[in-house]
Amino acid sequence: MARAPIRPLIVQKGTQVFLERGYSGSAVQDITAAAEVPKGSFYNHFESKEAFGAEVLQEFFADLQRTISMTLEATGVPPLRRLQNYFAAIIEILDGQDYVYGCLIGNFSVELSPLSDVVRTELLRIFEQWVKPFQKCIIEGQETGAIRGDLAPDLLADFLLASWQGAIMRMKIERNRGPLDQFLTVVFDALLTPSKNEIS
Amino acid sequence: MARAPIRPLIVQKGTQVFLERGYSGSAVQDITAAAEVPKGSFYNHFESKEAFGAEVLQEFFADLQRTISMTLEATGVPPLRRLQNYFAAIIEILDGQDYVYGCLIGNFSVELSPLSDVVRTELLRIFEQWVKPFQKCIIEGQETGAIRGDLAPDLLADFLLASWQGAIMRMKIERNRGPLDQFLTVVFDALLTPSKNEIS
Repeated sequence: MARAPIRPLIVQKGTQVFLERGYSGSAVQDITAAAEVPKGSFYNHFESKEAFGAEVLQEFFADLQRTISMTLEATGVPPLRRLQNYFAAIIEILDGQDYVYGCLIGNFSVELSPLSDVVRTELLRIFEQWVKPFQKCIIEGQETGAIRGDLAPDLLADFLLASWQGAIMRMKIERNRGPLDQFLTVVFDALLTPSKNEIS
Repeated sequence: MARAPIRPLIVQKGTQVFLERGYSGSAVQDITAAAEVPKGSFYNHFESKEAFGAEVLQEFFADLQRTISMTLEATGVPPLRRLQNYFAAIIEILDGQDYVYGCLIGNFSVELSPLSDVVRTELLRIFEQWVKPFQKCIIEGQETGAIRGDLAPDLLADFLLASWQGAIMRMKIERNRGPLDQFLTVVFDALLTPSKNEIS
């Protein structure tokens, strides 16, 4: 049986190890052991653990972009529904991990921002792209009157993304979807809703 | 000159080391070196690094409770203003660290929830207490009509606290107060405001 190519295998296993143990809590040997490759092969493929961390992050975001494109960027779906579909898709992923590990982008933001300029630069780049499909949904929702019109779309998009990360953080402590549901209730039943005044 | 008692000194230096390097990124030796005490003395005072982590967290929250009592629990100050004073006091602390390190409670939530039941239990206990003064401000604000009345106070308090942690997470990537100001704008100019309908 043909073996999977080593490099993507190490990235895939590394993602799981980083999710489970954090960046500093994962030794290169933990990652090569999970991938069942010799420890020495790691440095044939990656310059350093830090460069590997940045690459794992890029891959994680590339995966997430598939979810984004199927939800936030779906054609023919109303903007509020697209936002709801995105959060529902992420909850499905988090549910599959029993709400234990959270989001690698959020985890690395907290753990590595003070420690690695390489990873922090990658995180800045990711958030810059991540926020755009949210902005587009919000702009469209404001045009159709489905979303309150008195907050700038970029402000609202940044707030949603940051608050969602905060909800995931709290989820990791609670180990249930309660904080995610609280986010959805406040955002969709209250924050985004146009005021009566605005509708009339 | 009398030396400071060793135990609180190790806790104090450990807090700073954990903020700078994270939990897994900090060796016991880093902590004893920062406290300028022999490495062996650590285990005279603490059972394990994990038990030490939980104690550092308790101490961090005890400090935070002083800020809470001066802001959220201040007497004779209107409830919305008390909430604003709390966030302003935290921003002052974060500004003193150039927006690099964030909040130890949030950092440990993300890094240690999957790794340590001891720390996660402590985090559950902390959030249960932390949310209460927020709930009280919100209840009072709803009674006086300063805060929208259509969301349950415990829901709104949990959401505020989680969103604020999300804003601090984003702050760590940006290394400026931008995400904190975005939180304040959305929360105080929009989310908490009673609708025109509700006022009339």
